Amino acid sequence: MPQLSYKGDLMPSSPIRKLTPYSDKAENRGIKVYHLNIGQPDIDSPQPALDAIKNEPFKVLSYTHSEGTAEYRTALSDYYKNRGLELEPSDMIITNGGSEALLFCFGIICNPGDEIIIPEPFYANYNSFAIQSGVKIVPIQSKIEDNFGLPPIETFEDKITDKTKAILINSPGNPTGYLYSKAELEKLKELVLKHDLYLISDEVYAEYVYTDEEFVSVLNFPELKENAIIIDSESKRFSMCGLRIGALISRNPEIIKRALKFGQARLCPNIISQYAAAKAHQNAGTYFDDSRAEYISRRDLLVTELNRIPGVICPHPQGAFYCMVELPVDDTEKFAIWLLNDFDLNGETVMIAPGNGFYSDPEKVKNQARFAYVLKKEELQKSVDILREALKKYPGTSR
Amino acid sequence: MPQLSYKGDLMPSSPIRKLTPYSDKAENRGIKVYHLNIGQPDIDSPQPALDAIKNEPFKVLSYTHSEGTAEYRTALSDYYKNRGLELEPSDMIITNGGSEALLFCFGIICNPGDEIIIPEPFYANYNSFAIQSGVKIVPIQSKIEDNFGLPPIETFEDKITDKTKAILINSPGNPTGYLYSKAELEKLKELVLKHDLYLISDEVYAEYVYTDEEFVSVLNFPELKENAIIIDSESKRFSMCGLRIGALISRNPEIIKRALKFGQARLCPNIISQYAAAKAHQNAGTYFDDSRAEYISRRDLLVTELNRIPGVICPHPQGAFYCMVELPVDDTEKFAIWLLNDFDLNGETVMIAPGNGFYSDPEKVKNQARFAYVLKKEELQKSVDILREALKKYPGTSR
Repeated sequence: MPQLSYKGDLMPSSPIRKLTPYSDKAENRGIKVYHLNIGQPDIDSPQPALDAIKNEPFKVLSYTHSEGTAEYRTALSDYYKNRGLELEPSDMIITNGGSEALLFCFGIICNPGDEIIIPEPFYANYNSFAIQSGVKIVPIQSKIEDNFGLPPIETFEDKITDKTKAILINSPGNPTGYLYSKAELEKLKELVLKHDLYLISDEVYAEYVYTDEEFVSVLNFPELKENAIIIDSESKRFSMCGLRIGALISRNPEIIKRALKFGQARLCPNIISQYAAAKAHQNAGTYFDDSRAEYISRRDLLVTELNRIPGVICPHPQGAFYCMVELPVDDTEKFAIWLLNDFDLNGETVMIAPGNGFYSDPEKVKNQARFAYVLKKEELQKSVDILREALKKYPGTSR
Repeated sequence: MPQLSYKGDLMPSSPIRKLTPYSDKAENRGIKVYHLNIGQPDIDSPQPALDAIKNEPFKVLSYTHSEGTAEYRTALSDYYKNRGLELEPSDMIITNGGSEALLFCFGIICNPGDEIIIPEPFYANYNSFAIQSGVKIVPIQSKIEDNFGLPPIETFEDKITDKTKAILINSPGNPTGYLYSKAELEKLKELVLKHDLYLISDEVYAEYVYTDEEFVSVLNFPELKENAIIIDSESKRFSMCGLRIGALISRNPEIIKRALKFGQARLCPNIISQYAAAKAHQNAGTYFDDSRAEYISRRDLLVTELNRIPGVICPHPQGAFYCMVELPVDDTEKFAIWLLNDFDLNGETVMIAPGNGFYSDPEKVKNQARFAYVLKKEELQKSVDILREALKKYPGTSR
């Protein structure tokens, strides 16, 4: 067989999906599995988007403009204007989800061997896009005892080399749910301006912020006009992950010009998805308020109940729909497999995402796991009850 | 501004779209422009696909499996079985169009600096995906006087180095419409087996073959089990380019395993598109026969009429819906701009794709242009009439 590339070798299996064979087996044995492992919201997609799909007007499902349709880009810039952020349709390139926006971004700013600094734990697929693009991720560890807040800014500055092209942040964050404060963002702003770096801000959870203050985007800092690149997506905002619609956003026209070349190479984003996403924005109504209220009540239940279990530490996340939890076990990956293979409570068990997949080195942190609260409250309560009993029985529990 | 990558610098603008500002201006002046430049079929998408979209059953537009839905992969493997090619659903990873399949393929088999040999002229975006992946394209020129048939196999062997990972072919081809014979494919087969290379076969136009014989796929050669990688797409097959659905296909399980990692990184292909494409396959009826008959009659008209214009040379393509034509002008890019800026026949003009964008070096061939026959016959006839008059008036006509 001809030789294959190192990229396919290095690219990690998804931490969310790699235990799926075990959950499939459990389900085949008749065990009910509560899936706390995936970030797939269970909330219905917006009715205006579903209606738009059913009423789509196309006879020929043709290419759209590579940068996205005028209708959708206008709807998205109007959405940002409603959030108080001046953006024009020409400041955005529509992509196949936030995923493609990340891939374009890495390709636009990095030559092979260049470095991007990312606080960890981080969204696992950053690793994959970096490998695909020949980019080296330089991690800086945030600590659970600090609620996963921004590590001291000096630790970032220490890591800057002549290969460093950007700092990448994700707030509110996956897997931690941590929301960077304005003061934290100010520190990052000063640093990227001082060292002439890009600040890539993955803001796909911006709509799901649970504090009284407005979400602060890096677009709120006009000084970052040339430096700020936003990764956007409709997946979580409107619970329509399967439409694969996102955007790369920047007020730096040179970034947009180059993103368009990457966009032209793959021709265009999906015509139906852009049409549906435009209608979702044009008729958003109370969708965000309703979804936010639901997530807040789920978070409050899950965090409170988890912290009641002896030995479990769960910070109080301010956004997104995840929490990164310390469990009193030897190894959360072993524990997650044991939950699926060897345990049930009255025929039910839970599936969690081992935390090590969210670190640059899977050996670094062994006692954390990500919980996504994308289940109804009754199911979350049952999941916690199962977990409590499981921790009593698991041979690797360290109590 | 922080520095950007060489990739965005190198990546070419689309040869199909780079003259769009000129056609926009012409249309703004009230000139009717016949678009022979783009490969966007005008034929309606299949009714079963349109109906499927209107009847989609989803309340939550969720992620699908990264490799694609079981329903669509089964429908696609059934389609191949109907063509006499044994393929299982597990031999394919569903992608965002053939574009993403190409990107995955380059990433799976090539390290940065590795080489892929491609006969030129070739599909322009191969250049872009190669730059994005850090891959070097090694072109081998096919000649219009040979109807763009396979160049002598020795010229391929001469170019093989220790960096060569694959030969990439596209038959029937964009931009030439040339269909490789079984004998030509046999030569390629022997060569890749001898040198242990991959044979990437972009077969997205396989349904549009206008000879009496069956289309020969590289899947027809069982000896190529480990070496053959197929790029597939629904875009042209079903005239639904905007759904962005394609596939990377191989009987080599290691290729599929690695493609799945690339697929997991970007989560999944579009849920609605997969649903619609499955229904299109399950209810294909006479769609291909009808479309094929239409393309054949258009091709016959266009090729005959073009060859009647003094100085124009148009080979007789056996597939796809393009022809690569030699025009008696100094420079087809200048001529294409002149057609839009400085010429009209009774308020109408034509837009053609300059041929130089389909060569690795845009300075290599200046007197060819690609014509796509995705217009109705009356419009094709008018386009040829306009071209004939334009060639009489264009200052750079070499007669």
